Amino acid sequence: MNYFPSVNQVIYEGPKSTNPYAFKFYNPKETIGGKNMEDYLRFAVAYWHTFTEDLSDPFGSGTAIRPWDKFTGMDLAKARVEAAFEFFEKLNVPYFCFHDVDIAPEGETLRETNQNLDIIVSMIKDYMKDSKTKLLWNTANNFTHPRFIHGAASSNNADVFAYAAAKVKKGLEIGKELGGENYVFWGGREGYETLLNTDMKLELDNLGRFFHMAVDYAKEIGFDGQFLIEPKPKEPTTHQYDFDVASGYAFLQHYDLEDYFKFNIEANHATLAGHTFEHELHYARVNNILGSVDANQGHPLLGWDTDEFPTDLYSTTLAMYEIIKNGGLGRGGLNFDAKVRRGSFEPEDLFHAHIAGMDSFAIGLKVAQKLLDDQIIENVVNNRYSSYTHGIGLNIVKEKMDFCKLEEHALDLKEINQQSGQLERIKAAINQYLLTIYSDH
Amino acid sequence: MNYFPSVNQVIYEGPKSTNPYAFKFYNPKETIGGKNMEDYLRFAVAYWHTFTEDLSDPFGSGTAIRPWDKFTGMDLAKARVEAAFEFFEKLNVPYFCFHDVDIAPEGETLRETNQNLDIIVSMIKDYMKDSKTKLLWNTANNFTHPRFIHGAASSNNADVFAYAAAKVKKGLEIGKELGGENYVFWGGREGYETLLNTDMKLELDNLGRFFHMAVDYAKEIGFDGQFLIEPKPKEPTTHQYDFDVASGYAFLQHYDLEDYFKFNIEANHATLAGHTFEHELHYARVNNILGSVDANQGHPLLGWDTDEFPTDLYSTTLAMYEIIKNGGLGRGGLNFDAKVRRGSFEPEDLFHAHIAGMDSFAIGLKVAQKLLDDQIIENVVNNRYSSYTHGIGLNIVKEKMDFCKLEEHALDLKEINQQSGQLERIKAAINQYLLTIYSDH
Amino acid sequence: MNYFPSVNQVIYEGPKSTNPYAFKFYNPKETIGGKNMEDYLRFAVAYWHTFTEDLSDPFGSGTAIRPWDKFTGMDLAKARVEAAFEFFEKLNVPYFCFHDVDIAPEGETLRETNQNLDIIVSMIKDYMKDSKTKLLWNTANNFTHPRFIHGAASSNNADVFAYAAAKVKKGLEIGKELGGENYVFWGGREGYETLLNTDMKLELDNLGRFFHMAVDYAKEIGFDGQFLIEPKPKEPTTHQYDFDVASGYAFLQHYDLEDYFKFNIEANHATLAGHTFEHELHYARVNNILGSVDANQGHPLLGWDTDEFPTDLYSTTLAMYEIIKNGGLGRGGLNFDAKVRRGSFEPEDLFHAHIAGMDSFAIGLKVAQKLLDDQIIENVVNNRYSSYTHGIGLNIVKEKMDFCKLEEHALDLKEINQQSGQLERIKAAINQYLLTIYSDH
Amino acid sequence: MNYFPSVNQVIYEGPKSTNPYAFKFYNPKETIGGKNMEDYLRFAVAYWHTFTEDLSDPFGSGTAIRPWDKFTGMDLAKARVEAAFEFFEKLNVPYFCFHDVDIAPEGETLRETNQNLDIIVSMIKDYMKDSKTKLLWNTANNFTHPRFIHGAASSNNADVFAYAAAKVKKGLEIGKELGGENYVFWGGREGYETLLNTDMKLELDNLGRFFHMAVDYAKEIGFDGQFLIEPKPKEPTTHQYDFDVASGYAFLQHYDLEDYFKFNIEANHATLAGHTFEHELHYARVNNILGSVDANQGHPLLGWDTDEFPTDLYSTTLAMYEIIKNGGLGRGGLNFDAKVRRGSFEPEDLFHAHIAGMDSFAIGLKVAQKLLDDQIIENVVNNRYSSYTHGIGLNIVKEKMDFCKLEEHALDLKEINQQSGQLERIKAAINQYLLTIYSDH
Repeated sequence: MNYFPSVNQVIYEGPKSTNPYAFKFYNPKETIGGKNMEDYLRFAVAYWHTFTEDLSDPFGSGTAIRPWDKFTGMDLAKARVEAAFEFFEKLNVPYFCFHDVDIAPEGETLRETNQNLDIIVSMIKDYMKDSKTKLLWNTANNFTHPRFIHGAASSNNADVFAYAAAKVKKGLEIGKELGGENYVFWGGREGYETLLNTDMKLELDNLGRFFHMAVDYAKEIGFDGQFLIEPKPKEPTTHQYDFDVASGYAFLQHYDLEDYFKFNIEANHATLAGHTFEHELHYARVNNILGSVDANQGHPLLGWDTDEFPTDLYSTTLAMYEIIKNGGLGRGGLNFDAKVRRGSFEPEDLFHAHIAGMDSFAIGLKVAQKLLDDQIIENVVNNRYSSYTHGIGLNIVKEKMDFCKLEEHALDLKEINQQSGQLERIKAAINQYLLTIYSDH
Repeated sequence: MNYFPSVNQVIYEGPKSTNPYAFKFYNPKETIGGKNMEDYLRFAVAYWHTFTEDLSDPFGSGTAIRPWDKFTGMDLAKARVEAAFEFFEKLNVPYFCFHDVDIAPEGETLRETNQNLDIIVSMIKDYMKDSKTKLLWNTANNFTHPRFIHGAASSNNADVFAYAAAKVKKGLEIGKELGGENYVFWGGREGYETLLNTDMKLELDNLGRFFHMAVDYAKEIGFDGQFLIEPKPKEPTTHQYDFDVASGYAFLQHYDLEDYFKFNIEANHATLAGHTFEHELHYARVNNILGSVDANQGHPLLGWDTDEFPTDLYSTTLAMYEIIKNGGLGRGGLNFDAKVRRGSFEPEDLFHAHIAGMDSFAIGLKVAQKLLDDQIIENVVNNRYSSYTHGIGLNIVKEKMDFCKLEEHALDLKEINQQSGQLERIKAAINQYLLTIYSDH
Repeated sequence: MNYFPSVNQVIYEGPKSTNPYAFKFYNPKETIGGKNMEDYLRFAVAYWHTFTEDLSDPFGSGTAIRPWDKFTGMDLAKARVEAAFEFFEKLNVPYFCFHDVDIAPEGETLRETNQNLDIIVSMIKDYMKDSKTKLLWNTANNFTHPRFIHGAASSNNADVFAYAAAKVKKGLEIGKELGGENYVFWGGREGYETLLNTDMKLELDNLGRFFHMAVDYAKEIGFDGQFLIEPKPKEPTTHQYDFDVASGYAFLQHYDLEDYFKFNIEANHATLAGHTFEHELHYARVNNILGSVDANQGHPLLGWDTDEFPTDLYSTTLAMYEIIKNGGLGRGGLNFDAKVRRGSFEPEDLFHAHIAGMDSFAIGLKVAQKLLDDQIIENVVNNRYSSYTHGIGLNIVKEKMDFCKLEEHALDLKEINQQSGQLERIKAAINQYLLTIYSDH
Repeated sequence: MNYFPSVNQVIYEGPKSTNPYAFKFYNPKETIGGKNMEDYLRFAVAYWHTFTEDLSDPFGSGTAIRPWDKFTGMDLAKARVEAAFEFFEKLNVPYFCFHDVDIAPEGETLRETNQNLDIIVSMIKDYMKDSKTKLLWNTANNFTHPRFIHGAASSNNADVFAYAAAKVKKGLEIGKELGGENYVFWGGREGYETLLNTDMKLELDNLGRFFHMAVDYAKEIGFDGQFLIEPKPKEPTTHQYDFDVASGYAFLQHYDLEDYFKFNIEANHATLAGHTFEHELHYARVNNILGSVDANQGHPLLGWDTDEFPTDLYSTTLAMYEIIKNGGLGRGGLNFDAKVRRGSFEPEDLFHAHIAGMDSFAIGLKVAQKLLDDQIIENVVNNRYSSYTHGIGLNIVKEKMDFCKLEEHALDLKEINQQSGQLERIKAAINQYLLTIYSDH
């Protein structure tokens, strides 16, 4: 365990600590809303961004300095496992997530690839015995290899469909082997470059078939992880079928899959789709399909997936507000699907970034819980909608009205009493909560 | 009939006509795909943009010169009817559309408003007897008046729900009275300014209840027009529930409304939601929910609804391609939900704009039909997806496969043969079709 | 003085006050960076948003309840003056800003308009004698009236150019009369709807001529206010010539106007142009052209000018950081070019909104000054660029190098030592400063 | 010459040709506006997209099948030269462009890199003797290598500044050696990731110094190519200093460089900056700084640089209109800075794509010249601005007016006569020209 010699175990030192390798706000044993902070904040490290990513961009080569990069092939894969568990322990993080290709190199055939996977999965399983870090979810990367150029389950090529299916089959087996709590489907190539050469109906039907087979196979092997769809509107394709939660929900209902899937919601994917992060969480929550979260943030002025570590406290507060209202995330968690900037290429930056993210969600949790304790938003909402708790409003909600009765009520109404929505006042209150959350310390 | 004295009946004069008040491409009696062009292109004039709109913008007062604006109140409403039917006849357009408030002024109470409506509806009905122009759809404006500040069916105020319901009730009655072929719901205020004061669950549930009541009332009075939801992602609110077709489709399925509604798809709303016009049409088509079209276009660099008259021939071609593949629009049509630019304030500009739009869709129809006749896109698609017509692909489609059989197929696959998607070549072909569509003339 | 009977003088009550009509963070007499907070934060109320705006939007009528709206014509104008000075005093705000049309109604001719203006300006001057609120800037509204449909100084119509010039002439006279500290030019119609009918060269040349005449006239009458250009990229036009600060700066240099103008930078205009607020401030600062600020914020997911009251503390902190680095704004100030949401239509919301904005900038000032005191960003920057303080770097800066000498240095360089940019760590530090700024209270 | 055995010399076969490897619209010897088409359309092939690009994207590996990829190192570099000149000849294209790293691999040191370059440059020079294809421009890639992580001329590291300078020095020498007509500067890393660690003033000053040294060195060696700045607003950085033409022009004026530089305008960079392609061309034209063009197109709904081959005929028509009005591009040309889609990975797609682009600009040229011949836009413009040809308008243009004289004119004006801008009619006319341009064939 010596890939990060410059960093010790990261501990909580409080809001005024000047130690860059300490938590200032994430205090695992602090009680919030009746739970330990660490029980609420089921953080996960994303294997790909932290142990595989080289920080290249479309106009530049990789810059990341990673001590394990002196190895190659399976040795590199093994070194990454060692580095990962060192990192998990030093960061005190309860979960991790991975794609198949993150942990083991691909072979000449899928058979060889699976053999490589078996070796590394076995090694990971061994490491997990001595670690408190568990598997939040795994997934199959069905988008990077050229074979997925025209899609995976939605490919125009049936061989590719089969290949993708076989990879997910293996992924479910690995999930079962490692006790994964969820299994994620991100359809990075399940979309189109152009409608001009695309049979959308066949592609969607095949996607539906693919998901049903996945459900069947999970049952067959007794894998009980929650299935999660991760929406993203575009990039790499021009249009992805799981554009946002609503699109995915339309799909699930159409193909009778709504009982088997929830959603893994990523902040940056939300904003690329024209929604706020909290919108996607809220929409999923009220439809009972909120499963897990990819915790990152985008840059509001950039049109691509920047996958930044989450540091915007407004966003973490409103996200945690939704999560608390959801009664937590169940088997889900907060996976840092986030990469350090290309300019933050030192190994230590991986700690700075995760600490920044964990602290930001810890603050979000505290502020959200305090807002809830004081019923700040609840009071606003209850007051605003009170007309539905009695009289005609209650009858509407009880479905006792029809257009004729409603017309009777409306026909001679003169003035309807409206209230201000008071958004400015509410925003000021949130600022006040944010700024005073540590003022008793 | 003297509101547009400078313009005579607009007739087809062919591609090289220099008469600005002639059709160059829209030739009503030309046969395309076995129909008369005029039967395919069920154009509608939007009452609001053409007879009510004053061309103000958020930073400027109205500029429109409209000869009927010398009147006020009910006289203005009547003058507009006269102007409208003069315009319809001169333009040779088969349909029109309107909101309640476009045709008659609101009274002190809804009862008074309805009395005003009755007078004008009766006048319109008289005019329709002597006109070949029919009602494509009508709707209720449940967004402009301050009472709808926080929504209509999704308002926090039950009185507003009732008021909105009563207006739609009247709208359905008017639709029946005038023989409307569809009835449209655009939820311009059915969304939120901010989640911070919003009960999304209650609002969506109420919206579901509202639509069920509308369905029931239409049955009750025997109005058989097709119900249409018109999605728009935002503007005027921050987020509208019918964000795009997929969101609306998720909603319809969730609330068991999918048998009663189709979609009215607007080009500019599509692009504001991050989709192409043809995407929304295609998605609706393959889900059998394509109802009607609001034919306009947005400016790709502007972030608001510009509602420009459609002149982009790529867009009209791809739209007509979807419509032909859909077997036409059934009871739907192509409504010019488009306004002349604020700088195009002369009455004559209304003709220039509609002629531009009608000609553009006529070209789109001709090119799309020719592409179909020559199977340009079909050949590409059939060739690309041929692996699903035999062997393992066919078994996937027939749902005879599972993950184990697919793995067996994939495990030792070495190279998967992929084909180029050839987008560049397809785009060149479309240009070639566009440029030669009139080269025989 | 009874337009806002429900609100008393707004005073500072500290971070935990629950009084919605108190400042929680803006403490006018608190010393920050050697000045009183109130001396640093030269806040201004925007007459148009606060006393004239009716809160209509493109799809909805006005909703604002304004007690003075019971009057009309010149009586309304006078009532607004009374309401304004009541509001200024209760809010304890040092400045206000207005367009000509905000304060007095337009007449049949410009002569009549100017007579109306004279009456109201005289009234305002009287009120100012007993008030500590001064004029930050005034301007001429050369965009709302239909005459400006195709531009003002860049109109295709010379009469309009003359009309616009005469309005600015009057504006300069009013500025002098009321002791305005600046004079602003926002070219809302100085741009184009389409290039297809536009002579950009003539329009830009005329704009240059117009500004030179303004400079000359200000000299002639001895008005010494700072001239300010307010950039905005688009809306209402498709493209405005003062797209952003850089575009305006290119224009000023091209037309030899750079000695006479600085920039009035609006946050929401910055983001519409694809820049952060702090980018525009920084760019202006390093080019010595930062004049004043329109303090508001946009919605990152909406494509139009939402003109929200500023409550994002990241934005206010980074803005105040730039302003402190600039040595303050000189004659400039922080004008709340911000409007309450359409749903926040009560008179009291005007207080909530201004208090939210003033508090947010007060926090921004405190955090920015603390960051500066501790040299958080300065240390990062000084360390990063240290290679330019000695050796070859210093020679580059001293302009002693050429390509041959540089090549000699580079030709056999093997590894160049790079440092991490550490953005994640810096962002965490800013959060830490924000969260602990009141933790000693 | 056997890298593209499936394709023969591409020749013009006319609008109805069904040969995918023929020009349908680009007829090199056709006379347009008094020149041969081939003299007007100075097309260039971009070495990087056509011979080096592997078609990877941020979520996928390279897919391109390139027969020369069987080689490595200098052998690969040589094979690419052979393939390139085969391609140039078969495509009948007059120019090519390259970055240093496109043509030769980098060595351990810059000295070694330069030795590699010398070998390939010499080989290219030999090939050019027997080819009619010339060098439009070359440039130095100062963005891909990790050393440029924080910028090149604007790096925080003086060694990097020196390295970048040495690479440009070599680039100028190569340009001279190969008779390059221009030299391009694209500042892909000359910007910032975040303002929070950036000294913008020093970076801009250094950029100014760098350009002056480049000017000096070109003079020193007698290289007389036109210097071109290529603006791009963002990507890969968060903000690039040459955001758009106006930003670059502000910079050039500020640093006294405006006599030495013009602009290389890329369509997709224009749209990413919020401008149309034709806007950037027009703005550059009227400021006499239009140098050359990177001919491609973006996707209006995607927020990154898609670098598609140009096929939008509206865009090519309006671009060629600006270029004709500019009297051509002088030493500049139309460089296809465009890549085939990742799905278009066959070698033949390189032909399809270039043919699509060349045909599209050929049509653009024909339509634009016809519009000019018929003075379609000119008549509109001359009519619109006629008020500046006499009376007060002429006096404004002749700079004989001041605010007092203008006020005198305006004070009692009642109605100002305005004309419609008629955008809808103009757009219809452009469609008409487009659709009938081949109707005589």
